[in-house]
Amino acid sequence: MTSTLILLRHGNSDWNQKNLFTGWVDVRLSEQGIAEAQRAGELLAESGLKPQVLYTSLLTRAIQTANLALEVADRLWIPVKRDWRLNERHYGALQGLDKAETLEKYGPEQFQIWRRSFDTPPPALADDAEWSQVGDERYAGLADSELPRTESLKLVIDRLLPYWESDITKDLGEGKTVLVTAHGNSLRALVKHLDGVSDAEIAELNIPTGIPLVYELDDDFRPTGPGRYLDPEAAAAGAAAVANQGKK
Amino acid sequence: MTSTLILLRHGNSDWNQKNLFTGWVDVRLSEQGIAEAQRAGELLAESGLKPQVLYTSLLTRAIQTANLALEVADRLWIPVKRDWRLNERHYGALQGLDKAETLEKYGPEQFQIWRRSFDTPPPALADDAEWSQVGDERYAGLADSELPRTESLKLVIDRLLPYWESDITKDLGEGKTVLVTAHGNSLRALVKHLDGVSDAEIAELNIPTGIPLVYELDDDFRPTGPGRYLDPEAAAAGAAAVANQGKK
Repeated sequence: MTSTLILLRHGNSDWNQKNLFTGWVDVRLSEQGIAEAQRAGELLAESGLKPQVLYTSLLTRAIQTANLALEVADRLWIPVKRDWRLNERHYGALQGLDKAETLEKYGPEQFQIWRRSFDTPPPALADDAEWSQVGDERYAGLADSELPRTESLKLVIDRLLPYWESDITKDLGEGKTVLVTAHGNSLRALVKHLDGVSDAEIAELNIPTGIPLVYELDDDFRPTGPGRYLDPEAAAAGAAAVANQGKK
Repeated sequence: MTSTLILLRHGNSDWNQKNLFTGWVDVRLSEQGIAEAQRAGELLAESGLKPQVLYTSLLTRAIQTANLALEVADRLWIPVKRDWRLNERHYGALQGLDKAETLEKYGPEQFQIWRRSFDTPPPALADDAEWSQVGDERYAGLADSELPRTESLKLVIDRLLPYWESDITKDLGEGKTVLVTAHGNSLRALVKHLDGVSDAEIAELNIPTGIPLVYELDDDFRPTGPGRYLDPEAAAAGAAAVANQGKK
């Protein structure tokens, strides 16, 4: 049975606006991010795609994005499943730091390693640090060893793919149209898996915000063709903007 | 194990504004209703109550109310369960009619029977009528015999209490704080059950919009005391306003 998977990266947040590393810090959408989410809802409605179940991370900006898009698309009523395994990559000790200052202080090489290395995580965030998630009620269900203090993209894949297999593919296996609203790196992890992108090439893959990316999947949950953005021109411009992040 | 149940009736909708019978017609919150939902979120935040799981109907106005209130209360991330059994009473052939015109045409006695009789439903809505829900995708999981064409409060209780027993009390049984955002009549059905209100007396019970109503429940899911509104003064004024509905 074929199925449809729609990936949606949340729009601009308060901290994107301030050019800070965010990771698991629970910031909200900016006004621009709200407009992006509503535009995503229009794109969904125009496309005729009808999400039948929603998956989100536990982070407010992804949930806001889903709520706004589905309100515009008139599908707020679909079932919702939330899981920490769709969260953004934990940025470790970089969380809360200014991206431009970090670039200046550590230089472009180290900066690019932290942002795009496949398997080198940033330094760990201390449990008593201001932007730590240790003790956050929403992660009370996780074993302490599961709660990240920093993550590489590889570690994101390691925690996300088991959830893809156990939960998301279950709905897809029933032929449902599944909407996943999440984050730059959790969606890169998923796209890497779907498109079979190599560890080396994934560094160059940037997912634009607020533009639904649609895959048709076969019985084995493999894409029957390339993913397509519902607004390809805006997607190309958006991906270029993501690639330039950190530069002032 | 004791638990906390918070009931929240959605705020003013586009059709409340127009003084139309709504029932299962899927209208949205008005600007006033949006403000009411946000106020409910402030009341929740100020109270220190922390909902751990959300139940909503499948109707947009209840879902909007929950999303707005939880966004203000900073708890958008809690798990969500939606079910048609929390929907508003189906108003049958009255759906879409003007309340004041209906009152004038049929007289105050018939009007009051339709609005407040415990077990006399309004005339059934035809399946091909403009405001019928037959064929609505969101109810595709219901057997045709389950999908109402009209309902009395008794019929609402008949479809809601099994869900209370099977699902909502399951979370309460784990000691969770449960938020239910729903509708005037589905919440009256629940309050009737909780407070042991008689069939005759329930006609006089009006639940105001947008003000959280809190019950502490014991092991058997019975209230340990009377329900309390988080803003008692506004609740009293709101209940009086509901009682006067239909009058121009």
